[in-house]
Amino acid sequence: MTTRSPLAPDKFPDLPAIDGLGLAVAASGLKYKNRDDLLLMTLSETAIVAGVFTRSDTAAAPVIWSREVVASGRARAILTNAGNANAFTGERGRETVQQTSTALAKALGVSADHILLASTGVIGEPLEAAKLSAYFPQLVANKNASWDQAAGAILTTDTFPKGAHVSCDIDGITVNICGIAKGSGMVAPNMATMLAYIATDAALPAELLQQLLTTATDHSFNAITVDSDTSTNDSVFLIATGYAKTPMVTSADDPKLAGFRHALTELMVDLATQIVRDGEGASKFITITVSGAGSNHQARQIGLAIANSPLVKTAIAGEDANWGRIVMAVGKSGCGIDQQAIGITIGGFPVAANGMRIADYDEAPIAAHMQTSSINIAVSVGAGTGIATVYSCDLTHGYITINADYRS
Amino acid sequence: MTTRSPLAPDKFPDLPAIDGLGLAVAASGLKYKNRDDLLLMTLSETAIVAGVFTRSDTAAAPVIWSREVVASGRARAILTNAGNANAFTGERGRETVQQTSTALAKALGVSADHILLASTGVIGEPLEAAKLSAYFPQLVANKNASWDQAAGAILTTDTFPKGAHVSCDIDGITVNICGIAKGSGMVAPNMATMLAYIATDAALPAELLQQLLTTATDHSFNAITVDSDTSTNDSVFLIATGYAKTPMVTSADDPKLAGFRHALTELMVDLATQIVRDGEGASKFITITVSGAGSNHQARQIGLAIANSPLVKTAIAGEDANWGRIVMAVGKSGCGIDQQAIGITIGGFPVAANGMRIADYDEAPIAAHMQTSSINIAVSVGAGTGIATVYSCDLTHGYITINADYRS
Repeated sequence: MTTRSPLAPDKFPDLPAIDGLGLAVAASGLKYKNRDDLLLMTLSETAIVAGVFTRSDTAAAPVIWSREVVASGRARAILTNAGNANAFTGERGRETVQQTSTALAKALGVSADHILLASTGVIGEPLEAAKLSAYFPQLVANKNASWDQAAGAILTTDTFPKGAHVSCDIDGITVNICGIAKGSGMVAPNMATMLAYIATDAALPAELLQQLLTTATDHSFNAITVDSDTSTNDSVFLIATGYAKTPMVTSADDPKLAGFRHALTELMVDLATQIVRDGEGASKFITITVSGAGSNHQARQIGLAIANSPLVKTAIAGEDANWGRIVMAVGKSGCGIDQQAIGITIGGFPVAANGMRIADYDEAPIAAHMQTSSINIAVSVGAGTGIATVYSCDLTHGYITINADYRS
Repeated sequence: MTTRSPLAPDKFPDLPAIDGLGLAVAASGLKYKNRDDLLLMTLSETAIVAGVFTRSDTAAAPVIWSREVVASGRARAILTNAGNANAFTGERGRETVQQTSTALAKALGVSADHILLASTGVIGEPLEAAKLSAYFPQLVANKNASWDQAAGAILTTDTFPKGAHVSCDIDGITVNICGIAKGSGMVAPNMATMLAYIATDAALPAELLQQLLTTATDHSFNAITVDSDTSTNDSVFLIATGYAKTPMVTSADDPKLAGFRHALTELMVDLATQIVRDGEGASKFITITVSGAGSNHQARQIGLAIANSPLVKTAIAGEDANWGRIVMAVGKSGCGIDQQAIGITIGGFPVAANGMRIADYDEAPIAAHMQTSSINIAVSVGAGTGIATVYSCDLTHGYITINADYRS
C-alpha cells in the first residue's frame, strides 16, 4: 500500500458487529505479500441479500455467478479475493468459480447455490481454485475479524480501508447499517462501481432490499468517477440478517422505512465518496451539482461530463480557475443545452450567468477556493427541474505514475 | 511553442500554392508574443466551400456564424485568430463576429455574408473586433505567405505546424489538394475536431464538396482522440477554387472522382494523425483497429472506448503490455459484445482469442513492441463485418504538466 491519500479520513471509523454476520480474513500470498487478501463473510440462515453489478460486457466470471445467486435473495457466504479479478478467463474462469463455490459450500455445510463470489485485481490471468480453497479451513474456523481487517483484505491500489456506520430505527427498533468498500482506479459509474459490502441487522424481504439498494446506488456509487473506466468486477452487496427483529415492511414507501432509506443512502454516499477520496493520485475532492436540467438523469449526464473531463480535472490539479473548460464539458455532454441559459459558480462565487462571464467577475475569491482540497462546482442549465450531484477527483502526476507502472 | 513532439514528422512538407487561394499572416500580440497569430485566406470568385463543425452545445460565436455562411457554398475569405476562442462570450461575442466580418468584407470589397471566421484559444474571454481589424490593411495587402507560415499562425498548444499535400487527377487533369491543421488538446471526435483548412484547385459543386468532406471526415478527424474532450471551436473547411478547369462532376459515385475521393481521405487522415502525434504530452502514437463488429459505427465506438481509456493510455505510456485494460475498455463500450468472441493482437502478436488469453501466450515480443513509438492494437469482436480504425496517443506526465498550468 502506497502513501495514504491526502484526502483520506483521519482513521477507520468504529463499526459495530452486525448480529448474524461473521467476518474472517487470511493471507494467501497469491499476489500481495505480508497482507490479508481473502475475506469470508458468513451469513445467518435468516439473511436476505441484494446486489448490483457492473453492466460491462466483459463482466468477470464471479460477477456472472453472483448475479444468479443474488436473484434468489438468499446467500450464506461471500468470498472475496484481492489481486486477481478472474476476468476474461473464459471456460477456465467459470470452472474456478464452480470449484470454489463447491469447496466453500462443503466446508460451511451449505448449498453451493448460496455462495457469493467477488474477485478484484489483474484481468486475464487464470485464477486457480485450489489456491483459494487451501485457506477455507482457516477462514471457516474464524468469524471474529474486525470490520477494519475485513476492509483491509479487499484492497488493491487503494491507500486506505474504507468503512462507514449509521444507525436508525424502524418502527421504534434500532438497527445498525455497516459497510466497507474498495476502489481507487477503474472507477466510473455504470449501475455499480467497485466492491462494496453493506450489512444491516434489519429484517427486510428480498425484493424490497434489492429496490432499496438500487435506489441508493444511484445517489452514491453511480454518482462517482475517478477515471471514466468501468471495472469488469464491480459489485455491491447488501445483506439484511434480520436479527434486529424489525417488523417486516414490504413497500419502500412505507413511512416506517423513511429513516432507514435515508440512513442507507447516507452510508452509501459516505463509502462512495471515500472511494473518490482514494482516487489514484487524487489531491482534490470535487463535488459537482447540476441543477435546472431537463431531468435528474440529464443533470447527472452533464455532471459526469464535467467530472470526467481530463481538462477540467487537470485544471483543478493545477489550482487554475479555468472555468472555460467547464463550459466545454457542458457543451460536449450532448444534452442539447441552450448555452444562453448556462450559469456557473465555483466555491459559491458567481462566474458566469446567461451564457457569458458575469460583468463584475472577480477571480480572487475563486483562486483562493481552488487552493483548498474540496472544490465545489455548481452549474445551472435552465432547462427544467432536474438536479444531480456527482463526485470526482483531480487528475495529477500521481495517476500517471500509478498507472504507467502498476499491472491491474 | 514548447519542445517539438517526439512523434512529429522531420519537417513541414512541401506544399504547392493552390491557384485562386491567397495566404496572409500577421502578429497581433493579442495573447502570444513574437509569433504570427492571424491567418487570412482569400478565395477566388470561383471558389466553392464546404465545412464541418463541432456538435458541441456550447459552440463558439464564429462557429455559429461560419456554419451559416458555409450553407451557401460560397465564401471569399477565411479569417482565423489564435489565442482567444470567442466562445461562451454571449451577445458580445456575436457582436464581435458581426463587426469583424463587416470590417473584413469592406477591406476586401466583398459581401460580409462571404466571410468565414474561426477562432481558437481560451474560452470565455471577450474578444474585441478592433484588435483584429487593426491588422486588416496589412493582411489584405499580402497574399503570398507560405503554407508553413499559415500553419504556424493558427497554433495554440501545438508543438509543430501540420500540413499535407497530395495530387491526383480528375478525368486526366491533375489537381492538387493541400491542407493545414492545428490541434493538440481538447481533441475528441464529434463530427469534426479542431481546425483544418483544405484547398484544391479542382472544380466541384457545393453539395458534392460537402458530401466528400463529410465522408472523409468520418475516416480522419472523426477517428482521432487525444483526451476525449470536444472543443467548442472545431471547424474543418474544404475549398475548391476550380482553377484546374476539371469537368464538373455532380455525383460522389462518378468513377472520374475515385482518385480524388481517395486522395482527399488520404490527406485528411495524414492531417488528423499529425494532430494525434502532437497530442499534449504524447510519447506514443496508437493505432487501434476493431473488426468483426455489428457495424462500422459500432467498431468505431469500441475503438474509441479503447482509445479514450485513461488506463489503456497510461499502460502504453509505461510500456506495459497490460492487455486486460483493453478487455475492460471493450466491456465498458456498451455495445453488447459477447466476450467469448473477443480476440486481441498487439503489434501483430496474438494475445487473446475466444474470450481468454491464448494457451501459449508469450509476452516477450509484445513487450518489445510496447517499447516502440507506434503501438498497434487490433481487436476482433465476432459480431459481424463492421470495421474501423481510430488513432490516439498515450497519457503521460507531459499532459498533466501542460494542462495543470496552461489556461486554454
